[in-house]
Amino acid sequence: MSQTRIAFVDLVALLKPIFLRYGTSEEVAQILAINCALCERDGATSHGIFRMRGYVDSLSTGWVDGKAIPVIEDVAPAFLRVDARNGFAQPALAMARDVLVEKTLKNGIALLAIRHSHHLSALWPDLEPFAEQGFLALSMVNSFACTVPHGGHSAVFGTNPIAFAVPTASGTPLVFDMATSSMANGDVQIAARENRLLPEGSGLDDAGLPTQDPKKILNGGALLPFGGHKGSSISMMVELLGAALTGGHYSFEFDWSGHAGAATPHTGQLIILINAKHSGGAPFGHRAEVLVDQMKSAGVTRLPGEHRHRTRLETDRNGIPITPEELAGLSQL
Amino acid sequence: MSQTRIAFVDLVALLKPIFLRYGTSEEVAQILAINCALCERDGATSHGIFRMRGYVDSLSTGWVDGKAIPVIEDVAPAFLRVDARNGFAQPALAMARDVLVEKTLKNGIALLAIRHSHHLSALWPDLEPFAEQGFLALSMVNSFACTVPHGGHSAVFGTNPIAFAVPTASGTPLVFDMATSSMANGDVQIAARENRLLPEGSGLDDAGLPTQDPKKILNGGALLPFGGHKGSSISMMVELLGAALTGGHYSFEFDWSGHAGAATPHTGQLIILINAKHSGGAPFGHRAEVLVDQMKSAGVTRLPGEHRHRTRLETDRNGIPITPEELAGLSQL
Repeated sequence: MSQTRIAFVDLVALLKPIFLRYGTSEEVAQILAINCALCERDGATSHGIFRMRGYVDSLSTGWVDGKAIPVIEDVAPAFLRVDARNGFAQPALAMARDVLVEKTLKNGIALLAIRHSHHLSALWPDLEPFAEQGFLALSMVNSFACTVPHGGHSAVFGTNPIAFAVPTASGTPLVFDMATSSMANGDVQIAARENRLLPEGSGLDDAGLPTQDPKKILNGGALLPFGGHKGSSISMMVELLGAALTGGHYSFEFDWSGHAGAATPHTGQLIILINAKHSGGAPFGHRAEVLVDQMKSAGVTRLPGEHRHRTRLETDRNGIPITPEELAGLSQL
Repeated sequence: MSQTRIAFVDLVALLKPIFLRYGTSEEVAQILAINCALCERDGATSHGIFRMRGYVDSLSTGWVDGKAIPVIEDVAPAFLRVDARNGFAQPALAMARDVLVEKTLKNGIALLAIRHSHHLSALWPDLEPFAEQGFLALSMVNSFACTVPHGGHSAVFGTNPIAFAVPTASGTPLVFDMATSSMANGDVQIAARENRLLPEGSGLDDAGLPTQDPKKILNGGALLPFGGHKGSSISMMVELLGAALTGGHYSFEFDWSGHAGAATPHTGQLIILINAKHSGGAPFGHRAEVLVDQMKSAGVTRLPGEHRHRTRLETDRNGIPITPEELAGLSQL
């Protein structure tokens, strides 16, 4: 399978017209095309080009409003809500971003609660720019019911990712972004396409029995949370903050059965920013490096986010690899 | 082994003079005696009477200052720091509590960063009162290096607990409080005393090899994080928020070798409060109940914190069980 390489700007230029064709506004198309290209650039392929079909199906079946204009609700000096009005979460964040930063600079910490929104991407593209600006950033988004709470027999939680990014003295944020399910849905889908078995403990089949077959998990089965009852508690927190606090849907509360192929969960997203300048003692970025150095001394060879950042350096130089199949798929869209 | 029952107030009255005897102030003795009795009352025995020896050794070796007077630093409208001045974290929280609540009421969210502090108890006693007052409360505290980061071979992180409590319509907070190591240190110590083996994946021996022997973990070995690389990332977040942000020590940064028996890690604690009244949509407490009901419908029979709350109902009625050995141990102190 021969690969070609494509520059970041050219990939954006390739993706943007697809969003426009399926009915997004100019601004939404720009934001989502950049977001999708950022994931592909970092080698985070399960959130890159691979997701375009899901975006397109969500748009073409009328499940998501690609032209929605978010409404900001400024409810307290450090508390901002946004009603995304059935649009994507990223344009809602883009609209609220400056106010959120201003509130954080003024108060030391501030919160953004986005509801009535769709999020189909990774969370690190939302957070890394904040960390580069000197903020600690925490985010959670719930998704669609596909994960069984610990001790239960049917799905309640989504894959419910949690992400955290902090500034470092070197300038490259230290960041993790992880599903609180045993694995991300995108990875289950990719394994199903490639006929690969999953690790033990990944999920249950439709009879509630353990399975390593990704197709059984996707067809009536469910994922397990990562890390047993502890990971399940973290996933519960994501539901409470992503849905109950924002005013969005829980992962089990929406019905997209009338929108075949729709892939964007209609839920909520929480973002908390903290101004690193207010840390006690030595500057935060230097302290973060001290921890990183100690982890490396203890034998850790791959820090969270490091693989992506290395891939980024390489693709910035040589272009983003793209297969003929991917190119063909995109031109079909 | 015959057990007697003791009323909560009588247990506090039994514990308080011990703290005083080893040099705490009246106020610190009162706060820690109540805290310890609260844990015992809820059946959280690994943080109850069992911990008294550790408190006493920390005090008598001069490792912790039982008379420290914390200093509040009001650094931004929603950002509060406290220098505990080598005292316990709970009195620092008690001193800052009213200001933190006021800041949260005014701004919607607020942060308390305690540094130069010692925390040897559970986190839920710190958080449940906030949830009962209508706040979402998140806390993290780092501890002492006893947990190997995922992919490493020596300890960097502490057991690094994270706790989260939210109000519910029924009035009983929904709360979890968990070590981000495979298990809590107190539980490893109890297993060692009782000569019990631990579950697989709990820790490594001093050669870096997997072991289920709690004594090998305690003597030169280390715990593993819960949930592989994901739990390890959460534990890293606890270090960054509990130490780098507060200005406290990382779990690997203090040396208590000259204080034999000292058990109180000299680190930091972060608390974030969110005013539930600002949630979007239906009242937060009602929405939390909707999630709880769905989890129960999915077969979950034990919610986080539920076992403690049930034990509390029982011990409030019948008294807190205490063994003759425990009573004898306390009178020795």
